[in-house]
Amino acid sequence: MLERLIETAQEREKPDLVLKNGKIINVFTGEIVEGDVAVTNGIIVGVGKYDGKFEKDLKGKYVSSGFINAHLHVESSMVTPPVYSYEELKWGATTVITDPHEIANVGGMEALENILRAAEKCPINYYVMLPSCVPATPFEHSGAILKADDLLKFHDNPNVLGLGELMNVVGTLDCYPEIIKKIQGFSDKIIDGHSPMVTGKALNGYATAGVNTDHESITYEEAVEKLRCGMAVLVREGSASKNLTAIINGVVKNSIDTSRMAFCTDDKHLADIRKEGTVRANIKKAVKLGLSPVKAIQMATINAANIYGLKKIGAIACGYKADIVVFDDFENMNIEAVYKDGIPLEDIPKPVNTEYSKKLMSSVNVGYIDEKAFDIPIKYKYSVIGIIENQIATTKLEMSHRRVEKGLFEGTVRKIAVIERHHARDFHACAYIDGYGLEHGAIATTVAHDSHNIIVIGDNNSDMLKAVEILKNINGGYVIVKDGEIIGKLPLELGGLMSMKSADEFIPELDEIIQKAYEMGVNKNIDPFITLSFMALPVIPEIRITDCGLFDVTKFEFTE
Amino acid sequence: MLERLIETAQEREKPDLVLKNGKIINVFTGEIVEGDVAVTNGIIVGVGKYDGKFEKDLKGKYVSSGFINAHLHVESSMVTPPVYSYEELKWGATTVITDPHEIANVGGMEALENILRAAEKCPINYYVMLPSCVPATPFEHSGAILKADDLLKFHDNPNVLGLGELMNVVGTLDCYPEIIKKIQGFSDKIIDGHSPMVTGKALNGYATAGVNTDHESITYEEAVEKLRCGMAVLVREGSASKNLTAIINGVVKNSIDTSRMAFCTDDKHLADIRKEGTVRANIKKAVKLGLSPVKAIQMATINAANIYGLKKIGAIACGYKADIVVFDDFENMNIEAVYKDGIPLEDIPKPVNTEYSKKLMSSVNVGYIDEKAFDIPIKYKYSVIGIIENQIATTKLEMSHRRVEKGLFEGTVRKIAVIERHHARDFHACAYIDGYGLEHGAIATTVAHDSHNIIVIGDNNSDMLKAVEILKNINGGYVIVKDGEIIGKLPLELGGLMSMKSADEFIPELDEIIQKAYEMGVNKNIDPFITLSFMALPVIPEIRITDCGLFDVTKFEFTE
Repeated sequence: MLERLIETAQEREKPDLVLKNGKIINVFTGEIVEGDVAVTNGIIVGVGKYDGKFEKDLKGKYVSSGFINAHLHVESSMVTPPVYSYEELKWGATTVITDPHEIANVGGMEALENILRAAEKCPINYYVMLPSCVPATPFEHSGAILKADDLLKFHDNPNVLGLGELMNVVGTLDCYPEIIKKIQGFSDKIIDGHSPMVTGKALNGYATAGVNTDHESITYEEAVEKLRCGMAVLVREGSASKNLTAIINGVVKNSIDTSRMAFCTDDKHLADIRKEGTVRANIKKAVKLGLSPVKAIQMATINAANIYGLKKIGAIACGYKADIVVFDDFENMNIEAVYKDGIPLEDIPKPVNTEYSKKLMSSVNVGYIDEKAFDIPIKYKYSVIGIIENQIATTKLEMSHRRVEKGLFEGTVRKIAVIERHHARDFHACAYIDGYGLEHGAIATTVAHDSHNIIVIGDNNSDMLKAVEILKNINGGYVIVKDGEIIGKLPLELGGLMSMKSADEFIPELDEIIQKAYEMGVNKNIDPFITLSFMALPVIPEIRITDCGLFDVTKFEFTE
Repeated sequence: MLERLIETAQEREKPDLVLKNGKIINVFTGEIVEGDVAVTNGIIVGVGKYDGKFEKDLKGKYVSSGFINAHLHVESSMVTPPVYSYEELKWGATTVITDPHEIANVGGMEALENILRAAEKCPINYYVMLPSCVPATPFEHSGAILKADDLLKFHDNPNVLGLGELMNVVGTLDCYPEIIKKIQGFSDKIIDGHSPMVTGKALNGYATAGVNTDHESITYEEAVEKLRCGMAVLVREGSASKNLTAIINGVVKNSIDTSRMAFCTDDKHLADIRKEGTVRANIKKAVKLGLSPVKAIQMATINAANIYGLKKIGAIACGYKADIVVFDDFENMNIEAVYKDGIPLEDIPKPVNTEYSKKLMSSVNVGYIDEKAFDIPIKYKYSVIGIIENQIATTKLEMSHRRVEKGLFEGTVRKIAVIERHHARDFHACAYIDGYGLEHGAIATTVAHDSHNIIVIGDNNSDMLKAVEILKNINGGYVIVKDGEIIGKLPLELGGLMSMKSADEFIPELDEIIQKAYEMGVNKNIDPFITLSFMALPVIPEIRITDCGLFDVTKFEFTE
């Protein structure tokens, strides 16, 4: 096989495929070179003038190596890895570096095994960073605990590139033994960081620990400080977090070296991907902001490959994988063709789901629960979660009993409950929430960052209980109950997080259930399910609810 | 230990060493930042404002990560690896990537074992590329043959970075099975190339084979073509081959991306290193030619680290090795201080030689030989090696018997012989050579690229034989015999290639014997020993002599 590559490179024999007359972006020299790209056995064997067994005239279009999405959680798309991968591929991304943090919180080791098995079936280079922080906090019950010794069992898997985002910054700076063990276990691989607004000597400590990347910079100054420390910066542009404009504006203004910068999406919903792709959208936006097209392509390809130590990926050059994107220009960036291992997109079979383990497909295990779970004892004063429109942060409100009663009557205050759903443990908590809306029913989901217990919100105990029961029956997902009737149901049977459906089937169903939620009276300025899914994340200020109770994030303690 | 790094980075405890008030070259952002560098346990833990247990005021001097010499043969220095390393260190190089091609031709596997053991004792990061072409050609007898299976035994040695320069371009392009096996065996590591003037589809074939680097470019155009193919370019500035000016002029003129370029010396003699260093001289020259200082430093540090996949080397950044150079400015580049793993040069013990194996210390094994070995049968016409002054290429001369006799009488024509010296095999050859000079004696050496048999040149059989006998007695080196007397003798007892002496002892002895050679009448426009050492290298046009006979390089066959 290597022999055939060498022979066809010299045209002693015709290459399998020649893409003729392209404007080839060379990420090594920074040039754009006109010529043909010769491919044999899925490998690029030369750029120059070639005749191939099969030829395609590119008519002067741009040719880039396939894009690399350097950090993302597939779970945010709510479809399975193969289905997600195909969506990336359509937009020119041929490599993804994923952190299965969410599903690992549900299924632990078994989830990682399932995902790594699925990775092999993905029509894309599918890499995995092992989730470093499962559970994310000690203030809740997740489905699993992943210790250093557990993660080390996957150390040599060829699709594992290292340790996933090290969210426990405090634990790192304070040298918690288990974190040190995880870092040392993966010091020969890549360690992803997660250090929003960490600066100065704290950042030095975090980088010194061995963290190689960060994707949480929201300003240019933050990004540059991380670069100086030796951390690579992954510029994020997802559905919620959009940091590209701020960072790239600074890069352009200051002519900073971009070789340690790459692009990522972190969390991007399928509907948004369908509109504009992932890394493709980042490139287009960056060029519009004045970044040189070649530098943008470098960030989208070879830089990410270098940062993650990926060989033979990220360049149109001899011996590199024939992962290729063809597009019209940098203004429109219409993707005209995509090749994965030299095979055109149209010839790549639509993704088929692999088998997932029974346990992961029936992950909703709730202990005994009845309507009393949603009773809240009468008190003089309550701490209430205040939703802020268009944000995932919340306000801690203080309300008197009378004020709560008034809110319940007027429809602004509702009950929210979190119920442990992994191991049928007797943990659940209920509190009041302000600003969500909703009349005569309940909405519930098993997607609840990061432990993914059940969250249910409603105006009556009976519908809330029913919604929980339905989630049990469908193995997790989204549910809407109105006056005792199920009016919306979106199964997410893989871990209670992802649908087994194709993207084409899934997207309209998702749109429909969101629509139904709004029809139930949910505030139009929030996303009915995504907003809900963040109400249990006890790391974002000011107040959250977990299966252990109401949690004051700013005080770092439970409250009432 | 990691804990202490993290703690001192945050200054919860004082770092061991703080270099204060430096102008720190940040290779990631391309900036020069003023500040302090904090070091703990030999690791950089932060840049900023720090107080240390020990402090040194740099008074605004430049601070760079230690330089990386990306490709070299220590044998060219004629001292041992630890001695050589110390010389590099004095000039700011803290990492060397070496190819022990010469000593491997003498001692094979045993030589590699010896060198890798010595590497551990070097006061520098000493990496080894495994020689891929031993013997270099099938037209001579070397001391050893290294097959793919032999080399693979060293695959996992932590100091081995991959396969050394793949000189057999033809064998690669024609897919010789043994070469393919070597390439495939090291495809997960780095493969160094050696492709002078290889271009077009041949170069595509060579790069497609999996070659990652090349250090043989002599023009900018050649360098750029290799970069485009995906090969990193190591810009060479050695004692004989000086390619930096041509390449860097082109780089500056065309503003090409330099991220895949690094510096090397390949072959640089100790006396030249003592004058100007290695990579330091490359940087100084490149900046003088107009390359931006930061880009020059990137080439000298992080680029080489990236090309060879070296982690935590090549930058002044958190968690990186405290391999540090301090210098005054880019015009003079006076090296003011060097730190290796945080230890200042003056505190690093002078290198001590390790034990080398007995076989390697007595590598001169010549079969039975007498004066008849230097008889040349009388013929009508002879092929004669024509030395070209200041070059290692030769001209193939045709001389009549009368013309040879005249040359011998006038002192222009002399006899040259090559004698197998590794396994006392009965191979030797003798021929005429023009342009060397020399009266009343013989000069001999065991340094004879690449098989390192004995080369002896002289005007009478008796002195030639005596010179060979002396080389046997001293286990190799340089010898001058005049009228039956030994007038110069420089033992190179390690494989017949390297002296066990310190640099201070060795250099004057080398100078002295060269001086003596000139006094014997050797042409002043050639180096008496280096010129001789290349006369047996049957890959450089036009004519050479090996232990198997006179070889016409252009016709690729033996001649008479």
